Amino acid sequence: MATDSTTYPKTKANTVNRYKHQATYDVETIHSIVNSTPVLHVSFVPDPTTPMPIVLPMIGQMGLFPGSPDEDWKCYLHGYVSSRLMNLADAAIKLGEPGLPLCVAATKVDGFVLTLTPNSHNYNYRSAVLQGFATIVDDADEKLWAMQLITNSVVPERYENTRVPPDGAEMQSTRILKLTITGASGKVREGVPNDERKDMKREDVLDSVWTGVIPVYEKLGEPQVGPYNRAKKVPDHVTNFVDKENALREKYAVDAAHKPAPVKRVKKGEEE
Amino acid sequence: MATDSTTYPKTKANTVNRYKHQATYDVETIHSIVNSTPVLHVSFVPDPTTPMPIVLPMIGQMGLFPGSPDEDWKCYLHGYVSSRLMNLADAAIKLGEPGLPLCVAATKVDGFVLTLTPNSHNYNYRSAVLQGFATIVDDADEKLWAMQLITNSVVPERYENTRVPPDGAEMQSTRILKLTITGASGKVREGVPNDERKDMKREDVLDSVWTGVIPVYEKLGEPQVGPYNRAKKVPDHVTNFVDKENALREKYAVDAAHKPAPVKRVKKGEEE
Repeated sequence: MATDSTTYPKTKANTVNRYKHQATYDVETIHSIVNSTPVLHVSFVPDPTTPMPIVLPMIGQMGLFPGSPDEDWKCYLHGYVSSRLMNLADAAIKLGEPGLPLCVAATKVDGFVLTLTPNSHNYNYRSAVLQGFATIVDDADEKLWAMQLITNSVVPERYENTRVPPDGAEMQSTRILKLTITGASGKVREGVPNDERKDMKREDVLDSVWTGVIPVYEKLGEPQVGPYNRAKKVPDHVTNFVDKENALREKYAVDAAHKPAPVKRVKKGEEE
Repeated sequence: MATDSTTYPKTKANTVNRYKHQATYDVETIHSIVNSTPVLHVSFVPDPTTPMPIVLPMIGQMGLFPGSPDEDWKCYLHGYVSSRLMNLADAAIKLGEPGLPLCVAATKVDGFVLTLTPNSHNYNYRSAVLQGFATIVDDADEKLWAMQLITNSVVPERYENTRVPPDGAEMQSTRILKLTITGASGKVREGVPNDERKDMKREDVLDSVWTGVIPVYEKLGEPQVGPYNRAKKVPDHVTNFVDKENALREKYAVDAAHKPAPVKRVKKGEEE
């Protein structure tokens, strides 16, 4: 998983068993799904003696810290890192493990695919899952770099347009998790509806059921000025971001609605 | 957690330790977050001897099957239920457990809250987490009912406007998971930006940094007709849904951007 690799290795843990033709291990695809998802769902097991996971919403980005000798991309995560979570990560390292076992999931819905029969209904979507081991970022330079990376992932250039750098108390209180990735996979569905052959032969069904795609995308509304704002106008880094992203996102969702459908290869015994 | 309860009990496993003033155990709030989230993130531990969870995207709805003597709301989940997942659920039951330990997370982003300094940046969001034990729905009536519930959660009245009922092969191949909930919690952040007192005293910062909220909502685009559609017009159940939802969603996100900010009560040692 060095940076010169273009695919993640297929392992038992990350092999996508369903719809293989939609599965991807392409590094660029997986990273772009993670990077463009505003909330990542991060899962871990709070009590290693009980196989009950918990899921926390966090903000994250793939990153390669320039100061690091390590050439593998990491996933940097920001969110509520409780003392319990920190203790778990510390305990794992003391046990000789590379960190806290963690799974990160990113999913984007691009459309509702409406077909002839409920069982063929689908979403156009992009999803990625990373598994690996998480540690707390201790190095001050790396932490500062990750804070900037994550802030600018929400709104580009936001970091440098605010009161920075973080002061000592802010540096101390901010906790960033770094995931070293042991496995990753993605799945992408795009395209027009596809139905089973049995329904495509039904004239009555074809005549009566509307089939198509409702595009879905995360829309950015008009920026709303806050109560203590004194800046005279909404700055370019905000308006440019909103305009550009809305155009790109709408285009992606609408384009996806018109692409060829993936070929169905459902194995016997698998659900539709 | 019977239906006449209005809050989920606070237990150690589901107690929200951060931003308690934003935490909720209100059943209606938690159910509405789950029900309005198009993709739920479902986590479980594939190998109980290793505390490494996996997360799968699924579609789900809270439901109370009319034929059931049980008065507790369940979370019905539809997605790729692998043979491995089924075997895990079966194995858990054979061990005398109530099902496979499962965590379901739902998160909606309602806005990007831009403040004076990166550390005070936030999202307006709604999130819910359910923990419990999952079983496969075996009863044919309950499965059919859940299929209808889940289809209509994506687009209301869609089920009855398609070729139904599912035939024998479709019934057989569809797998629905039912989560019996042992704990649940939610978190909601809405409102204008809020900054630390130290930055609110900085005239230079207040004069130069724009503060406000970018509303975010999942927009439904114009329905795109599929290649084999023969229905003459986009049906009312689709156009009504798109129009009504877009208006509601935009209004929620914009309204949330103008509500009072939650009061900050960050404990020492916690991240910002």
